[in-house]
Amino acid sequence: MTVDRILPTAEAHDLLELATEIADRELAPKAVAHEQRAEFPREVLRTLGRAGLLGLPYPEEYGGAAQPYEVYLQVLEILASRWLAVAEAISVHTLSCHPVAAFGTEEQRKLLPDMIGGELLGAYCLSEPQGGSDAAALTTKAVRDGDAYVVSGTKAWITHAQVADFYNIFCRTGGPGARGISCLLADRATPGIHPQAAERTMGLRSSPVAQLAFDEARVPADRLIGGEGNGFTIAMSALDSGRLGIAACAVGLAQAALDYAVDYARQRRQFGRSIIDFQGLGFTLADLATQISAARALTLAAARLRDAARPYSVEAAKAKLFATDVAMRVTTDAVQVLGGAGYVADHPVERYMREAKVLQIVEGTNQIQRLVISRALAAD
Amino acid sequence: MTVDRILPTAEAHDLLELATEIADRELAPKAVAHEQRAEFPREVLRTLGRAGLLGLPYPEEYGGAAQPYEVYLQVLEILASRWLAVAEAISVHTLSCHPVAAFGTEEQRKLLPDMIGGELLGAYCLSEPQGGSDAAALTTKAVRDGDAYVVSGTKAWITHAQVADFYNIFCRTGGPGARGISCLLADRATPGIHPQAAERTMGLRSSPVAQLAFDEARVPADRLIGGEGNGFTIAMSALDSGRLGIAACAVGLAQAALDYAVDYARQRRQFGRSIIDFQGLGFTLADLATQISAARALTLAAARLRDAARPYSVEAAKAKLFATDVAMRVTTDAVQVLGGAGYVADHPVERYMREAKVLQIVEGTNQIQRLVISRALAAD
Amino acid sequence: MTVDRILPTAEAHDLLELATEIADRELAPKAVAHEQRAEFPREVLRTLGRAGLLGLPYPEEYGGAAQPYEVYLQVLEILASRWLAVAEAISVHTLSCHPVAAFGTEEQRKLLPDMIGGELLGAYCLSEPQGGSDAAALTTKAVRDGDAYVVSGTKAWITHAQVADFYNIFCRTGGPGARGISCLLADRATPGIHPQAAERTMGLRSSPVAQLAFDEARVPADRLIGGEGNGFTIAMSALDSGRLGIAACAVGLAQAALDYAVDYARQRRQFGRSIIDFQGLGFTLADLATQISAARALTLAAARLRDAARPYSVEAAKAKLFATDVAMRVTTDAVQVLGGAGYVADHPVERYMREAKVLQIVEGTNQIQRLVISRALAAD
Amino acid sequence: MTVDRILPTAEAHDLLELATEIADRELAPKAVAHEQRAEFPREVLRTLGRAGLLGLPYPEEYGGAAQPYEVYLQVLEILASRWLAVAEAISVHTLSCHPVAAFGTEEQRKLLPDMIGGELLGAYCLSEPQGGSDAAALTTKAVRDGDAYVVSGTKAWITHAQVADFYNIFCRTGGPGARGISCLLADRATPGIHPQAAERTMGLRSSPVAQLAFDEARVPADRLIGGEGNGFTIAMSALDSGRLGIAACAVGLAQAALDYAVDYARQRRQFGRSIIDFQGLGFTLADLATQISAARALTLAAARLRDAARPYSVEAAKAKLFATDVAMRVTTDAVQVLGGAGYVADHPVERYMREAKVLQIVEGTNQIQRLVISRALAAD
Repeated sequence: MTVDRILPTAEAHDLLELATEIADRELAPKAVAHEQRAEFPREVLRTLGRAGLLGLPYPEEYGGAAQPYEVYLQVLEILASRWLAVAEAISVHTLSCHPVAAFGTEEQRKLLPDMIGGELLGAYCLSEPQGGSDAAALTTKAVRDGDAYVVSGTKAWITHAQVADFYNIFCRTGGPGARGISCLLADRATPGIHPQAAERTMGLRSSPVAQLAFDEARVPADRLIGGEGNGFTIAMSALDSGRLGIAACAVGLAQAALDYAVDYARQRRQFGRSIIDFQGLGFTLADLATQISAARALTLAAARLRDAARPYSVEAAKAKLFATDVAMRVTTDAVQVLGGAGYVADHPVERYMREAKVLQIVEGTNQIQRLVISRALAAD
Repeated sequence: MTVDRILPTAEAHDLLELATEIADRELAPKAVAHEQRAEFPREVLRTLGRAGLLGLPYPEEYGGAAQPYEVYLQVLEILASRWLAVAEAISVHTLSCHPVAAFGTEEQRKLLPDMIGGELLGAYCLSEPQGGSDAAALTTKAVRDGDAYVVSGTKAWITHAQVADFYNIFCRTGGPGARGISCLLADRATPGIHPQAAERTMGLRSSPVAQLAFDEARVPADRLIGGEGNGFTIAMSALDSGRLGIAACAVGLAQAALDYAVDYARQRRQFGRSIIDFQGLGFTLADLATQISAARALTLAAARLRDAARPYSVEAAKAKLFATDVAMRVTTDAVQVLGGAGYVADHPVERYMREAKVLQIVEGTNQIQRLVISRALAAD
Repeated sequence: MTVDRILPTAEAHDLLELATEIADRELAPKAVAHEQRAEFPREVLRTLGRAGLLGLPYPEEYGGAAQPYEVYLQVLEILASRWLAVAEAISVHTLSCHPVAAFGTEEQRKLLPDMIGGELLGAYCLSEPQGGSDAAALTTKAVRDGDAYVVSGTKAWITHAQVADFYNIFCRTGGPGARGISCLLADRATPGIHPQAAERTMGLRSSPVAQLAFDEARVPADRLIGGEGNGFTIAMSALDSGRLGIAACAVGLAQAALDYAVDYARQRRQFGRSIIDFQGLGFTLADLATQISAARALTLAAARLRDAARPYSVEAAKAKLFATDVAMRVTTDAVQVLGGAGYVADHPVERYMREAKVLQIVEGTNQIQRLVISRALAAD
Repeated sequence: MTVDRILPTAEAHDLLELATEIADRELAPKAVAHEQRAEFPREVLRTLGRAGLLGLPYPEEYGGAAQPYEVYLQVLEILASRWLAVAEAISVHTLSCHPVAAFGTEEQRKLLPDMIGGELLGAYCLSEPQGGSDAAALTTKAVRDGDAYVVSGTKAWITHAQVADFYNIFCRTGGPGARGISCLLADRATPGIHPQAAERTMGLRSSPVAQLAFDEARVPADRLIGGEGNGFTIAMSALDSGRLGIAACAVGLAQAALDYAVDYARQRRQFGRSIIDFQGLGFTLADLATQISAARALTLAAARLRDAARPYSVEAAKAKLFATDVAMRVTTDAVQVLGGAGYVADHPVERYMREAKVLQIVEGTNQIQRLVISRALAAD
């Protein structure tokens, strides 16, 4: 299905065309094999960086495209519809550039062009094995020792743990609670940082997550971002944007699943006609299409609030919650449309379904999103 | 809750403020009594017309405000959140102006200023007792006799049947099927047009619907709109816009129900604290708030397609389907939030719930919307 | 639709036949008029009592039929499918007989034959305006004064408040919390008991609920049931049974709505055939029928646990939650099946929808049921 | 969680204890490794056969246990909660014994003891690559040639295709439509029967499905079951029972997922307490528990109809539809309860989710179940 989009500029239109072209040429043909081999497509990320698609929302002075989130998210959606792992990698990488871009010193920002250009891939190290949704309780410790912080502890569920060139490490430099947390920017080569074996995930295998063990890793003190005690604020500010990214990924994945199911249902004949002509199936597809349109509209509405510098935290939580729930439902039903064929790897819908599940969990589980929204309602 | 809206112009901003003010002053205080007495608020419609709120999407030359649908629908939403029957009346009236405005002759358009100004209230006479969703099968007959059409038959579910000043009558002037249908514009005073007793509806009683019997009613031939055989096209073109209107009404109604429930849940204390602080309730409210935001975003996205002169028929069907289903769910759950208190007329939520149901039925039942969407998927 | 039931005895079979016959003859023809006039059918209850249908689960020595709950609930279901208000009245009345039957003295039990025979109608006075779901916090006070308790306070949402012959009053005779609560059995004629005006409920109007004000009402001390401080235990023990009763009512109401919708959908023709033959509608009806069968099976499974003297509290909560949610969904969709016709009082489905809502609220809101179930899961 | 079951006999109670013991000892420890290696546990099936668990519903004269379906299904449920693939294998095998048991000649029934004893494993060959849900349109051909039928064609989605000892082959011996179909019973060693490579399914990998190619395979004419032209009747009669089997599998799988999630939620602590104590999560678990209880009750109610020799086809369709939808929802939400941990193979819930999907597809997709139910409603 062609989605009819109203874009703010002609430039945005060109960007989406470029993204579509690259997605068709570089992403779509490689997804299946990489997923099967659980192999991260480092080169694809580099290609996207060179094409300018890794730094869309960042200022031009750092190599970005200064695009509004409304546009960036639609690019992400298109890429996600061809290969979710890559789109999610971009979303995480974009998130990883945020602390430096928004809170970094002049010196630190010198890294940005290489980050945004795709030469330096980032990882965002917030979650911990015990911490889960309770980020403020994190226990990874960083102790000042001369001109460095000595970091010890374990991070979990880290996208790019094994392939990143730099890490944003959220760690405790002070007392308990949110105010004792700081953000450090560490190079991959830092001694004492040990990526663990990849988790055996249900899907999204070409973008492995793993634990990251810190064993007295020394991070130079000038790599502290935003001052001691500001780590939680930095983490949270990036999360809102990250949620929009995941929402866009979910819309793209859901659209891919629907498109595949619709195509199949047009061609598959049973009882003498195309199965899409049976209302039982057709109405289900209509409901899915409606949900996707709503998810896209909600995500872009939240993005426009961000672009207009209005508060958008609650709307981002709504978008993440709604879009990822839609993706779970659409992909599950897409398998159903194909029947037995949907359950085997000959068709991509079973993969979509396995992938959708992770979107309900990352960047704050959907329970956390509900918490964010309900607290806003209680306080409003 | 204040909804944070990004509006296209400062004028739109002023319009929404005006609408809010009038809604609070003229609508909110009268809704309950009118509903109870099942009395149509003719004067309120006149007031709205004089304030310029009845012709928002129409050209300024006819007394309209030349506003995009994106703006008109948000005005409608605000009015619906105070008194659904009035907002629905505006939506129907706006629909009733459409045939003349879009297909009328110069002469016929001379009526527009009075229509748009609220002096002449319209009714849109399409449905029939047997026809229901199958509009193309309508049987009301119009036979040319000299300089008039003689109309016989019965229309059903006609909003404003008893109070309208003019009727758009869709009737059969030719053979069977869609191509045999024409559209006539009849004055209220036409002999042979007999509004029947109001239906005993579950809600929306201050905007009564009724059957309209045509007993050899003579409508001047120069009141034929758009030529013989074009009635179905006219009816359908107006329906897409009408669906957007109902979607906006649904969003407003749902928002009103949520706002009331949230307010109650903040104040109501059980087991020692505000019930909104219990996650069981808070998460439900979060889901409702999310659904409403999605419904609003989807409706406005469809409106922007219309405003950009892009095809929007399918997106209007999605918006109508989604927003009215959301309104049904939100209002039903809003009653639940209040518990026993929600079930009695001391609070408006039980009324909202009764009103929501009709929105899933009018302007094409939600089954018809699914049909429109699934056919588009099958044909795409 | 005929429901194929496997019953434990031939006697049960006869009872259900009797119930069906009485329901068709005495209930069905009167429901609409009584609902319209908001008039309680006291005579119908007497008729049911004389036919032995008011004391089905109680021992034969008190005039009951010693039927298992499995059978009693199916009788209730059948009656509810003809007139919900009457079935709910029976459920409440059966509940009101429970304290005396299960905890009463020999002397107190002498009232049972008249209660069970329908001569004395009962009301169960637990809820309070502020208390709501938090029954242990009730504030109606009973102070011992000589050979009587002097009762002051206000009860809310009391079914039969205005028509009952006796009241079970749950009131505070001791300190705060559950242990300070006792249960008194008061005659209607007791000075100082003042039924208030009926609540203006959305439905179930022929079984009005009202507040009950106690203004130093003197209840003889020998009317204390089960000893001081045992009131909360009594209240809770009856509630489990009451929940099963509401679940059965919900199944009956849902079945009535489905039957009506199916019948309509068979006869109604659109686009050249019966609308039930369109999969879009047929599949919806299939889902509703499935939900109802599941609700019935779940309710009867819980009843069999009770009949076997196994713990059934959690299963009763599940049955109440599930069956009433099903009734809400089925009745709402039944209106949709009829389209515009469903929205008017010419057909009963709009009434069913208004009635269903109250079932999600009474005998513990469905939120309270979820609390009961989740606590059992946490503790298991 | 212990499920409190009311069983018809003491023998049934013993059977369930035996099943639980074997499930814990023989199934649970092996499931993960077999799934990983996609290896069918032939030996486990033999063990179950020797323990008498493969022929529960069949007469004792053939080595069965003459148990009612109500009991058989609960055994299946328990086995499914430890290893779905094995339970599903039993369900398919039980189905495969049905044609001979119900329609076979004396001679043919001599095979039954070995079938039921687990020495001979069966496959049920009905589906075809093109046929899908439209069984009556199958094209696999069987032409009589002397004392044999020569079979050509391809079957698809055949459980046990590669490991079965005998095949029920539904093939066309006559003209088009249901009446041209016959059922043959073929030995594994029959020349010309070629199992294909296993399908790469999303789950249930230890019970591989595959296509089965028939290349002029000669099946002795005395292996025709039930006479020429009766194949469709045989196939359909077995399907009703098969649907009950799948429903029971779904209940067991869902219960396993819930139990795991509840256990995790009790132990996992966030924000200072067990996450099960947060209502947001607790209420979700309560809903899942309720759905499972309803699915179990519905399945057993349908089974009791079958046991009482009442029509049960529609109720079996409802049970299959409802229970498998519940399993899909419960397993998806169980992953969510564990968050990131749920998405990796360290915990079984991601496997449960992948397995649940197939249950919505086999033995008639859930769309087919809705068709069965809606047609019954239309015809009733």
